[in-house]
Amino acid sequence: MAGTDRNRELITGGPAIILMEPQLGENIGMVARAMANFGLSNLRIVNPRDGWPNDKAISAAAHADHVIEATRVFDTLEAALADLNFVYATTARPRDGHKPVKGSVEAGAVLRARENAGEKTGLMFGRERTGLRNWEISLADEIVTFPVNPAYASLNIAQAVLLMSYEWMKSGLGHPLETAFDKPEVEPAPKSDLHGLFDQIEEGLDARGYFRSETKRMKAVDNLRAVLTRPGFSTDEINVLRGLFASFDKFSRPGQRKPGEAGDEE
Amino acid sequence: MAGTDRNRELITGGPAIILMEPQLGENIGMVARAMANFGLSNLRIVNPRDGWPNDKAISAAAHADHVIEATRVFDTLEAALADLNFVYATTARPRDGHKPVKGSVEAGAVLRARENAGEKTGLMFGRERTGLRNWEISLADEIVTFPVNPAYASLNIAQAVLLMSYEWMKSGLGHPLETAFDKPEVEPAPKSDLHGLFDQIEEGLDARGYFRSETKRMKAVDNLRAVLTRPGFSTDEINVLRGLFASFDKFSRPGQRKPGEAGDEE
Repeated sequence: MAGTDRNRELITGGPAIILMEPQLGENIGMVARAMANFGLSNLRIVNPRDGWPNDKAISAAAHADHVIEATRVFDTLEAALADLNFVYATTARPRDGHKPVKGSVEAGAVLRARENAGEKTGLMFGRERTGLRNWEISLADEIVTFPVNPAYASLNIAQAVLLMSYEWMKSGLGHPLETAFDKPEVEPAPKSDLHGLFDQIEEGLDARGYFRSETKRMKAVDNLRAVLTRPGFSTDEINVLRGLFASFDKFSRPGQRKPGEAGDEE
Repeated sequence: MAGTDRNRELITGGPAIILMEPQLGENIGMVARAMANFGLSNLRIVNPRDGWPNDKAISAAAHADHVIEATRVFDTLEAALADLNFVYATTARPRDGHKPVKGSVEAGAVLRARENAGEKTGLMFGRERTGLRNWEISLADEIVTFPVNPAYASLNIAQAVLLMSYEWMKSGLGHPLETAFDKPEVEPAPKSDLHGLFDQIEEGLDARGYFRSETKRMKAVDNLRAVLTRPGFSTDEINVLRGLFASFDKFSRPGQRKPGEAGDEE
C-alpha cells in the first residue's frame, strides 16, 4: 500500500531485532522493510549464510536503507545480545523450561515499558526452517508467541518480525496496557555480564567432571542457563553470585574429593 | 517458525479477503499463507494480471492448499463483494470522503461482532504499487488503516493481509492476551526450600573462611540472601542451584588452595 510521506520525520530506535543464521537475503530484506514500517531500526544478524552485505537483502528491503545500512553482523548469538538488558525469543512451539511465555500484545507492552525505563531490549528470531535451538532460547528472558492457527502455525521470519514490530508501534499509542507496567524494580544486567557468570560456572563444572557426556552436558547447561536467566539479575546481583561461586571454586574444604573419586551423590 | 500440528482441526471461515488486480503470483501465495496462519480461508481475486491458477502463487502459499483451492476469481470488484454484508477497504493514505476510519484492532473487533451476528464480511486490498482507487474505496463501508511509520508507510499486500488476519484471530480469543499455548508464571518454592539453599551456601562459605569477621558475615549473608530471594525461585530451580553449589563444594580442581592460604582475592 502506498502512502509514504518523505517529509515526515523517520521513526527509529526501539528493540533490536536479532536474526539467528538467516539463509535467504530476501528474508533479511523483508525483515528490514517490516521494521521500517513500524519504526524499528536496529537489526542484528548472527552468521548470515550468504554473508553481508547481501544484494538480495538490499533489493527486498524496498528502500528501507536506514535499516540495511545500520545492520550489524555477529559471529555468535552471545555477542549479538551482549549489551541488551532484556530479550524475548520468538517461537511457535511450546517448550519445556522455566521461561514465562507472553502473547504478542503483552510482549509489545513489556518492551515499551522497559525501553521507556532506559533498558535496551531485543527480539530473537530463528532460522527459516528450524527456528531457534533450545540453547539459544535459554539465553532469552522470556518467550513470545503468536495466536496462530494450530493446524497451520508456520510464520516466516519476516512475518513474525512484522507482527512484533507492529505490536511495538501500537504499544506507543497510548495503549490501555501501557500503564499496567511500571518500571521493573531491578534493572537486568547487560547480557555480557550474565554470560560471564555462565562461563565461570560452566568452566568450574567442567574442571570437576560434572558432566558425564556431551549430551548430558548440553541439557544440563540449557537448564542452568534457564534458571540463571529467568530472574533478570542485575549487575550487582551477578557480582554477588560470582563471588559465591569463586569462593567455592578456589578454596577446598577438609575432606574434599578429587574429580572422579567415588562418593555419595547429591 | 515451525510448530504446525497437523492433528489439530484447521480453523477456517471468517471475513473474505478481496485482492484488487494483484500483479505477482508470489504475493497472492503469501496472502494465502498469511490467511491460513490466522484461520481465514475465503480468498477472492479480482482480475489477477497473470491469470488463475498461478504456479507462483501455489509455490509461495507453502501448503496453504485449502485456501488456494477455494480461491474464487471475479471480473469486477462489485461481483466480488456482491454477497457480503459489510466491507472494509484498507489504505495507508488519509482519504477525502465521509467514511469512518478505524484502526486495525478495532476493525478486527467489528468484523468479529458482525460475523458472530451472522453477517458476511470482507476486507479489500489494493494493487501492489498503487493501492485502491477512490471509486473502489467508495464501495466499502468503512476504512481500516495501520499505525505505520509515516515516513515509511509502504506495506505490501501480504503484510497488510497478515496484520488484519492476525487481528481477526485475536478478536476471537476470550482474553486479549490469550495465546495459542499458555503457561503459568513460575510458582515460588516453599520458603523451607529456599532456606535449605541458604544453609548449603553459607555452610560452604564458612568452611572456606569466606567471612572475615562476624560483622562482615552478617552483612554478606544479608546480601546473598537478598539476591537469592528476589527471583522467587521455584523448587525445581532451587534444586538446580543446589546441584551446582554441591559440585563446586564437594570436588576440587587442580591447583585449588586450602582455606587461609595466601593468594589473590576476587
